[in-house]
Amino acid sequence: MDAAQYDFAAPFIEPQGSPIRELFKYLGRPGMISFAGGYPSQDLFDRRGIGRALRQAYEADPVACLQYGDTRGAHGLRTSLARLMGERGVHCDADNVVVTTGSQQGFDLLIRMMIQPGDTAIVEEPAYPAAIQALRLAGANLLTVPVDAQGIDVERLEALLQTLPKGGRAKLLYTVPTFANPTGATLSAARRVALLRLAVAHRLLIVEDDPYGELRFGGEAVPSLLELTKTVEGAPDWVAYLGSLSKIVAPGLRIGWLIAPDAIQRRAIVAKQVGDLCTAPLLQEVARHYLDSGALARHMGAICGAYRLRCEALVNALQQFLPDELTYTVPQGGMFVWASLAQGKDATVLLRRAIEHNVMYVPGSAFYVRHADPGAMRLSFAAPGEAEVFEGVKRLKLALAR
Amino acid sequence: MDAAQYDFAAPFIEPQGSPIRELFKYLGRPGMISFAGGYPSQDLFDRRGIGRALRQAYEADPVACLQYGDTRGAHGLRTSLARLMGERGVHCDADNVVVTTGSQQGFDLLIRMMIQPGDTAIVEEPAYPAAIQALRLAGANLLTVPVDAQGIDVERLEALLQTLPKGGRAKLLYTVPTFANPTGATLSAARRVALLRLAVAHRLLIVEDDPYGELRFGGEAVPSLLELTKTVEGAPDWVAYLGSLSKIVAPGLRIGWLIAPDAIQRRAIVAKQVGDLCTAPLLQEVARHYLDSGALARHMGAICGAYRLRCEALVNALQQFLPDELTYTVPQGGMFVWASLAQGKDATVLLRRAIEHNVMYVPGSAFYVRHADPGAMRLSFAAPGEAEVFEGVKRLKLALAR
Repeated sequence: MDAAQYDFAAPFIEPQGSPIRELFKYLGRPGMISFAGGYPSQDLFDRRGIGRALRQAYEADPVACLQYGDTRGAHGLRTSLARLMGERGVHCDADNVVVTTGSQQGFDLLIRMMIQPGDTAIVEEPAYPAAIQALRLAGANLLTVPVDAQGIDVERLEALLQTLPKGGRAKLLYTVPTFANPTGATLSAARRVALLRLAVAHRLLIVEDDPYGELRFGGEAVPSLLELTKTVEGAPDWVAYLGSLSKIVAPGLRIGWLIAPDAIQRRAIVAKQVGDLCTAPLLQEVARHYLDSGALARHMGAICGAYRLRCEALVNALQQFLPDELTYTVPQGGMFVWASLAQGKDATVLLRRAIEHNVMYVPGSAFYVRHADPGAMRLSFAAPGEAEVFEGVKRLKLALAR
Repeated sequence: MDAAQYDFAAPFIEPQGSPIRELFKYLGRPGMISFAGGYPSQDLFDRRGIGRALRQAYEADPVACLQYGDTRGAHGLRTSLARLMGERGVHCDADNVVVTTGSQQGFDLLIRMMIQPGDTAIVEEPAYPAAIQALRLAGANLLTVPVDAQGIDVERLEALLQTLPKGGRAKLLYTVPTFANPTGATLSAARRVALLRLAVAHRLLIVEDDPYGELRFGGEAVPSLLELTKTVEGAPDWVAYLGSLSKIVAPGLRIGWLIAPDAIQRRAIVAKQVGDLCTAPLLQEVARHYLDSGALARHMGAICGAYRLRCEALVNALQQFLPDELTYTVPQGGMFVWASLAQGKDATVLLRRAIEHNVMYVPGSAFYVRHADPGAMRLSFAAPGEAEVFEGVKRLKLALAR
């Protein structure tokens, strides 16, 4: 059967799968050391604590766990998430929170209500590939603004917004302002305020995706864009915040949340009805029991401490084995070091040799909409242990030497 | 903030929420007897069996439960679901199955890849409201074909297809051919074959949503459209099958599956990447343990037996208390009796009085795209027990008498 016979929607005629997921087939190779994953470290999962929450949730109310649930999310979990947001400096209550099936769904709901084919959206670049992909599959006209070590370049964004024709104005901008994927960069406080002012002036919805913000192991915390909306007139109307338990509890729970202005929140609930009716009530109850037990607060120190050590190990190994071959910025949190090969070397070409040496990373091209830095690569320090990190970097050196 | 300031996508400017979910607020009233729910009966959940599967799944492999999973679904569950499909007469293997976050997501994935604003889609009418809503929010040009006691009227469908202009051809048709929601009707075998022939002739993708097919308590089984594709030349290219554990195990698991031609299946996986990355691995593992334990096979008899008794109770009560006020067809399975008020009475008007008498149902208008039968109502026999059914129908009689 010829696919053309189906008259697929335009973005689905020849859709690209995730370039990162294409690498998965190599992950299972014996002895492979991977800096490629965007996964949190499985040895940092609080297996016992989550297991306890699982038993408690099911024993306390099996019917609530097994029946359909409210589309906006269970009131108990929304209350717990509002409290968590309070600890992050954002005052809100259960009614401000919509539970989503991972933050990926939260972004998807926003795209559904905002973007029709041909509508303009902006992403920072480099950016999280599944965000780029989501906008592409919605048929968005995709524009980009570069990121540096201080996050998205707000001056470039302003220049871009001023060039847009009236009929082609940008409807939303997607950003991971804290410990970005892939760059690890954190948007400075000054730029955050400038970004919010631009959002108000240009009626641009800022989608603040914040899965990594709690994974800080160095430097000073910067308030979220959502928190800063109270300091910029009009800004509360123009920020939609996506939270996630994937990187701080476990991705398998598929628990995310959306905090957005009322008009957007109401439409998100309608969009979610047709998307999946509700997020699995059992997993919502597990998340609530886990959060309410205080286990997250106790466990975050262990996660951040481990990531700090692993990041240091990676940076030390890069300094020791590849002092001249790579440039990079040391992140203050998150899971990623964003590096660039010197001397015009190409990270996609190198990857083939690296895989032969049983080491992997993600070439930077995966994170660009159009013009990639060919030397860029994303190195995740989340998964490999310290000894593996050193061995992995040694193998990278061998691959580079060929 | 004026919603208009956001420039929402056209279908989201004034989106309608689910008319059924609007009724939820009355459900909690003390003493309310509800025929309104589309929910399976919670007292038929196999709490112990599912609880056992939950413990086994988490103990066997907590990391697999907590980490991200394959977008297409875990191989183990896909194998179990392929075996389940084998018991339903469809020969397939794990590679033919995509796990979805409920069958609602399965339909959503198909809409994403097929429907852009203005594209034509067809639904049977009356139809499942969330299917109508999903197509509306995608901006579909929505056409309808009436349903009678034998299911969708295939001759009317053929006539409709012949009137469509070439540029406006219908891309997909959504149907629940077995124990439809809301009518309870089952499409006859002859009509199934005729429907498949039309699908081939008109390149019309048939979306066969089959959540209720196993809930048969009377009459002879009819093969699924998917099974019948092997008898009609070309038909295997034109059926996408949606399965669900919601009505036979528990909706809270949010486990559905999609079986579709390769070109469609590949795109469904890409669409799912941006929708929610993966279905919760823990719940996939729970479903696999449950299915592989044989518990479903043992439990189905209890579910079907209970629904048979409840359906009989409802029909008996209707005969006893409302012999002249209502017409209806007795279903051979599923969860619904579709009834119509005699003497031009309006079910929406009656509902207000019914709620005052502490009894509820869903007025038929919720299931129509355009022209509702004002006297129609959906009565679910899934939830209330036998005594409640009689009391509920007595209250309906009181409401009607006013």
